[in-house]
Amino acid sequence: MLDDLDLPTSISAPGTSVVIRRATPDDLQAIMQLLSDDPISAGRGDIANDDDRPAYAAALDRIIHDPGNELLVAVNRDDAVVGTLQLTVIPGMARRGSTRLLIEAVRVASTQRSSGIGSALMRWVIEQAAIDLEAPLVQLTSDAARDDAHRFYRRLGFVDSHVGFKFYVTLPASAAQ
Amino acid sequence: MLDDLDLPTSISAPGTSVVIRRATPDDLQAIMQLLSDDPISAGRGDIANDDDRPAYAAALDRIIHDPGNELLVAVNRDDAVVGTLQLTVIPGMARRGSTRLLIEAVRVASTQRSSGIGSALMRWVIEQAAIDLEAPLVQLTSDAARDDAHRFYRRLGFVDSHVGFKFYVTLPASAAQ
Repeated sequence: MLDDLDLPTSISAPGTSVVIRRATPDDLQAIMQLLSDDPISAGRGDIANDDDRPAYAAALDRIIHDPGNELLVAVNRDDAVVGTLQLTVIPGMARRGSTRLLIEAVRVASTQRSSGIGSALMRWVIEQAAIDLEAPLVQLTSDAARDDAHRFYRRLGFVDSHVGFKFYVTLPASAAQ
Repeated sequence: MLDDLDLPTSISAPGTSVVIRRATPDDLQAIMQLLSDDPISAGRGDIANDDDRPAYAAALDRIIHDPGNELLVAVNRDDAVVGTLQLTVIPGMARRGSTRLLIEAVRVASTQRSSGIGSALMRWVIEQAAIDLEAPLVQLTSDAARDDAHRFYRRLGFVDSHVGFKFYVTLPASAAQ
């Protein structure tokens, strides 16, 4: 499935161009930094703390080895990570058996905001990746506090037709990640 | 992952008890009926049309063979399907590498609404399945028109902190599902 995506690929934004490629374990520090470079993520504990590195490394390993998931990074010509997003292909019964493409964890480096990289990334997902993956339904949720992100997704043609609910489970200590 | 779930299992609602088990190809007709037994799904084209059976059968096959996905059915003591839901385990980087458990396609037969089956199903997910799957974050989206469902999820402890966006992709005819 996601192995079929034709990557790496180059995408263009008005002022720049970046390459989208699959994340590798060598990207760990850059991805941790990108997560912490966002106030809402940082508020949830993603602060690029060295103590959390083993948990992030294990998660990256799980994503890389999961055939239904792909963590992608957008890199500039110096191979510096300037953006990331995760794709999950979800087979489903609804809508006459439509496959869904879920987008999670869209992040663009704060130094690159308004560069058009975010739009270029999302347009690649809806105009190329979804078609290659035969997924007619692309979906994502965005924190209700991210007003700018909501305008961004609406401009791209996304419809805010749903309410996103979360439930936080306290795992027993033996199962803590 | 999802193969580790201890199923089938019996769950109790105030007036009844049902068994949760993995869906099999023999459940296809019952699941198509359940989808069509919901006005919002029916409005999206899920009307249990015989012409759509091959597409649903292919989708059920994809779900059954996907290690990250599980389609579950709730059956009564006559093994009649009275509810269904889909679980997807999604490894992730955010929240210090937390695994997410996504719930899709929650449906309870209209004849069984208010029986407590829906609550019992969802409580099993958040109190048992999420722990067994070591997924501290359970998430779902619900159509903005489903006010009753929103009250139902809030009563269970879900927080409507996110906005759910969808984008519909027109696939080339050769890739149509």
